[in-house]
Amino acid sequence: MTFSSKLIEKAVEAFASLPGIGRKTALRLVLHLLKQDKTVTEQFASALLAMRDGIQDCRICHNLADEAVCQICADARRDRSLVCVVENIRDLMAIEDTGQYRGLYHVLGGIISPIEGIGPADLNIDSLFERIKQDEIKEVIMAISPTIEGETTVYYLSKKLQPSGVAVSAIARGVSFGGDLEYADELTLGRSIVARVPYTR
Amino acid sequence: MTFSSKLIEKAVEAFASLPGIGRKTALRLVLHLLKQDKTVTEQFASALLAMRDGIQDCRICHNLADEAVCQICADARRDRSLVCVVENIRDLMAIEDTGQYRGLYHVLGGIISPIEGIGPADLNIDSLFERIKQDEIKEVIMAISPTIEGETTVYYLSKKLQPSGVAVSAIARGVSFGGDLEYADELTLGRSIVARVPYTR
Repeated sequence: MTFSSKLIEKAVEAFASLPGIGRKTALRLVLHLLKQDKTVTEQFASALLAMRDGIQDCRICHNLADEAVCQICADARRDRSLVCVVENIRDLMAIEDTGQYRGLYHVLGGIISPIEGIGPADLNIDSLFERIKQDEIKEVIMAISPTIEGETTVYYLSKKLQPSGVAVSAIARGVSFGGDLEYADELTLGRSIVARVPYTR
Repeated sequence: MTFSSKLIEKAVEAFASLPGIGRKTALRLVLHLLKQDKTVTEQFASALLAMRDGIQDCRICHNLADEAVCQICADARRDRSLVCVVENIRDLMAIEDTGQYRGLYHVLGGIISPIEGIGPADLNIDSLFERIKQDEIKEVIMAISPTIEGETTVYYLSKKLQPSGVAVSAIARGVSFGGDLEYADELTLGRSIVARVPYTR
């Protein structure tokens, strides 16, 4: 792609450095901004700068926060006896979007992965145990993706949580709602028969 | 999508206001910027602001320019007797990328479209005729997409150019190189038979 303008070239390269955005898409975005009023670009840039500058790590649960404590931890209406352990902020948001959970969270910031050299010390695990010691937590829910690394992380945490006497649970697994048995993977289907539950209407 | 941070929400909305970027992609981009050093976001924002602030309309051809005259118009090695008329900057860049053209350009900034209420007065047409009057232009090449509006624009321009005595040409049309005849559309294939050219080796 040949640019007759250095300014355009730099703006295209800035967009194209973001994941999943190629140079053609980047050019489309730049030309879009050029068609809009100058204030649109200014507001766009200031929203990003304010975000990058102002965002904090919630000192309780490590969620992204505008203050020292995130909106969820600060919300008095939430059940403070429940803590849901998640890998990252995206998983936290996915659970929030269901509207089914009213407890607190704890964001690990990753999962244990020996291959990638990520051990327990690299994750927000110590702060989880601090919370269990200090707060009135009764149950820790493991909402970690069922991959090998995820299972390892859940196993490690549940072992370490045992002495504390806090209840440990994991999100239910099985065939998706609306899913077709025929197309469910063998492992999920097999386990969902073994782990069958009493039928209730 | 529920955000527990206003700063994140605003940054996601900023990205999602761009064409072709949904809220999920926007969130991915924001989280990417958060993982990077602060300077990455600062450089990103300043590239966009510098571009939006500094970019000019080339006063000769209406290409995007860093100065009053774009790099192409300022390039002494280019053939100043040839002007290629294009609809927009993207088409200009596509032709530049072929490396086959060494003349100048004229960017119309659109095409005549009665449905969308775009008439000749809304396009950079007067400045094209000014150039033909003043400069040593011998040939005007119409490189406009072969749509109904495109054909209308080419017809209008060629009619208006007739009295000036300048040669008017249009880019060649036919079956694509490497294209399969079987899959060429009927109109293109039909016209490429009618407009057949002498075979040369």
